[in-house]
Amino acid sequence: MKAIVTIMLKDGVLDPQGKAIGQALQNLGFPQVGDVRAGKVIELELAETDAQAAKSAAEDMAKKLLANQVIERFKVEIAG
Amino acid sequence: MKAIVTIMLKDGVLDPQGKAIGQALQNLGFPQVGDVRAGKVIELELAETDAQAAKSAAEDMAKKLLANQVIERFKVEIAG
Repeated sequence: MKAIVTIMLKDGVLDPQGKAIGQALQNLGFPQVGDVRAGKVIELELAETDAQAAKSAAEDMAKKLLANQVIERFKVEIAG
Repeated sequence: MKAIVTIMLKDGVLDPQGKAIGQALQNLGFPQVGDVRAGKVIELELAETDAQAAKSAAEDMAKKLLANQVIERFKVEIAG
Protein backbone atom coordinates (compact mmCIF):
# COMPACT_ATOMS: atom_id res chain seq x y z
CA MET A 1 0.00 0.00 0.00
CA LYS A 2 1.06 3.57 -0.51
CA ALA A 3 0.97 5.98 2.41
CA ILE A 4 1.15 9.71 1.78
CA VAL A 5 2.43 11.79 4.69
CA THR A 6 1.89 15.53 4.39
CA ILE A 7 3.87 17.71 6.78
CA MET A 8 3.16 21.40 7.26
CA LEU A 9 4.45 23.97 9.73
CA LYS A 10 1.93 24.63 12.51
CA ASP A 11 -0.22 27.70 12.06
CA GLY A 12 1.62 29.97 14.49
CA VAL A 13 5.07 29.14 13.12
CA LEU A 14 6.69 31.63 10.75
CA ASP A 15 7.20 30.23 7.25
CA PRO A 16 9.84 32.28 5.40
CA GLN A 17 9.86 29.86 2.44
CA GLY A 18 6.11 30.30 1.98
CA LYS A 19 6.51 34.06 2.37
CA ALA A 20 9.19 34.13 -0.34
CA ILE A 21 7.02 32.07 -2.70
CA GLY A 22 4.07 34.40 -2.10
CA GLN A 23 6.22 37.45 -2.80
CA ALA A 24 7.63 35.88 -5.98
CA LEU A 25 4.12 35.04 -7.22
CA GLN A 26 2.99 38.64 -6.59
CA ASN A 27 5.97 39.91 -8.56
CA LEU A 28 5.17 37.49 -11.39
CA GLY A 29 1.72 39.05 -11.78
CA PHE A 30 -0.53 37.04 -9.49
CA PRO A 31 -2.03 39.73 -7.24
CA GLN A 32 -4.72 37.33 -5.99
CA VAL A 33 -2.22 35.39 -3.91
CA GLY A 34 -2.57 35.84 -0.17
CA ASP A 35 -0.96 33.72 2.52
CA VAL A 36 1.32 30.92 1.29
CA ARG A 37 2.53 27.95 3.36
CA ALA A 38 5.17 25.50 2.15
CA GLY A 39 5.42 21.93 3.39
CA LYS A 40 6.65 18.47 2.55
CA VAL A 41 4.98 15.39 1.23
CA ILE A 42 6.49 11.93 1.58
CA GLU A 43 5.14 8.94 -0.33
CA LEU A 44 5.96 5.62 1.32
CA GLU A 45 5.54 2.25 -0.36
CA LEU A 46 4.63 -0.15 2.46
CA ALA A 47 4.52 -3.95 2.53
CA GLU A 48 1.34 -3.91 4.69
CA THR A 49 -1.81 -5.22 3.00
CA ASP A 50 -4.20 -3.79 5.58
CA ALA A 51 -5.05 -0.11 5.23
CA GLN A 52 -5.49 0.45 8.96
CA ALA A 53 -2.13 -1.18 9.77
CA ALA A 54 -0.44 0.82 7.01
CA LYS A 55 -1.90 4.06 8.34
CA SER A 56 -0.83 3.38 11.90
CA ALA A 57 2.69 2.38 10.79
CA ALA A 58 2.99 5.56 8.73
CA GLU A 59 1.81 7.67 11.69
CA ASP A 60 4.43 5.99 13.83
CA MET A 61 7.12 6.83 11.22
CA ALA A 62 5.94 10.43 11.05
CA LYS A 63 6.17 10.79 14.82
CA LYS A 64 9.57 9.10 15.08
CA LEU A 65 11.35 10.57 12.06
CA LEU A 66 9.45 12.46 9.42
CA ALA A 67 7.85 15.32 11.34
CA ASN A 68 9.11 17.57 14.09
CA GLN A 69 5.98 17.78 16.21
CA VAL A 70 7.20 20.82 18.09
CA ILE A 71 6.71 23.00 15.02
CA GLU A 72 5.04 20.73 12.46
CA ARG A 73 1.74 18.90 12.05
CA PHE A 74 1.27 15.92 9.78
CA LYS A 75 -1.54 14.01 8.12
CA VAL A 76 -1.45 10.47 6.73
CA GLU A 77 -3.52 9.27 3.79
CA ILE A 78 -3.57 5.74 2.40
CA ALA A 79 -3.79 5.44 -1.39
CA GLY A 80 -4.42 1.98 -2.77
CA MET B 1 -10.23 29.73 -1.74
CA LYS B 2 -7.32 27.56 -0.82
CA ALA B 3 -5.34 25.79 -3.55
CA ILE B 4 -3.01 22.95 -2.63
CA VAL B 5 -0.20 22.31 -5.12
CA THR B 6 1.65 19.02 -4.66
CA ILE B 7 4.96 18.69 -6.49
CA MET B 8 6.79 15.37 -6.85
CA LEU B 9 9.81 14.35 -8.85
CA LYS B 10 8.84 12.45 -12.01
CA ASP B 11 9.01 8.68 -11.77
CA GLY B 12 12.25 8.21 -13.67
CA VAL B 13 14.12 10.89 -11.73
CA LEU B 14 16.46 9.79 -8.93
CA ASP B 15 15.32 10.97 -5.50
CA PRO B 16 18.25 10.89 -3.06
CA GLN B 17 16.21 12.58 -0.32
CA GLY B 18 13.53 9.90 -0.54
CA LYS B 19 16.22 7.22 -0.59
CA ALA B 20 17.80 8.63 2.57
CA ILE B 21 14.43 8.76 4.33
CA GLY B 22 13.73 5.14 3.34
CA GLN B 23 17.13 4.05 4.65
CA ALA B 24 16.64 5.91 7.92
CA LEU B 25 13.21 4.32 8.42
CA GLN B 26 14.67 0.85 7.81
CA ASN B 27 17.36 1.58 10.39
CA LEU B 28 14.73 2.78 12.86
CA GLY B 29 13.00 -0.60 12.69
CA PHE B 30 10.46 -0.26 9.88
CA PRO B 31 11.41 -3.14 7.54
CA GLN B 32 8.10 -2.85 5.68
CA VAL B 33 9.20 0.37 3.99
CA GLY B 34 9.93 0.06 0.28
CA ASP B 35 10.34 2.89 -2.19
CA VAL B 36 10.12 6.40 -0.72
CA ARG B 37 9.62 9.62 -2.70
CA ALA B 38 9.88 13.08 -1.20
CA GLY B 39 8.10 16.10 -2.60
CA LYS B 40 6.76 19.53 -1.77
CA VAL B 41 3.32 20.83 -0.99
CA ILE B 42 2.40 24.50 -1.28
CA GLU B 43 -0.84 25.88 0.13
CA LEU B 44 -1.97 29.08 -1.56
CA GLU B 45 -4.67 31.36 -0.23
CA LEU B 46 -6.32 32.87 -3.34
CA ALA B 47 -8.74 35.77 -3.68
CA GLU B 48 -10.73 33.94 -6.39
CA THR B 49 -14.26 32.91 -5.42
CA ASP B 50 -14.74 30.47 -8.32
CA ALA B 51 -13.16 27.04 -7.85
CA GLN B 52 -12.45 26.57 -11.56
CA ALA B 53 -10.74 29.97 -11.83
CA ALA B 54 -8.73 29.27 -8.67
CA LYS B 55 -7.58 25.92 -10.03
CA SER B 56 -6.53 27.33 -13.35
CA ALA B 57 -4.66 30.22 -11.67
CA ALA B 58 -2.85 27.78 -9.38
CA GLU B 59 -1.89 25.60 -12.37
CA ASP B 60 -0.52 28.68 -14.07
CA MET B 61 1.55 29.51 -10.96
CA ALA B 62 2.85 25.94 -10.77
CA LYS B 63 3.95 26.06 -14.40
CA LYS B 64 5.55 29.50 -14.12
CA LEU B 65 7.25 29.26 -10.74
CA LEU B 66 6.49 26.42 -8.37
CA ALA B 67 7.39 23.31 -10.38
CA ASN B 68 10.26 22.51 -12.68
CA GLN B 69 8.39 20.56 -15.33
CA VAL B 70 11.56 19.03 -16.75
CA ILE B 71 11.94 16.83 -13.68
CA GLU B 72 8.77 17.41 -11.64
CA ARG B 73 5.06 16.77 -11.99
CA PHE B 74 2.42 18.66 -10.05
CA LYS B 75 -1.21 18.33 -9.07
CA VAL B 76 -3.60 21.07 -7.94
CA GLU B 77 -6.48 20.54 -5.53
CA ILE B 78 -8.96 23.17 -4.41
CA ALA B 79 -10.03 23.02 -0.78
CA GLY B 80 -12.93 25.27 0.27
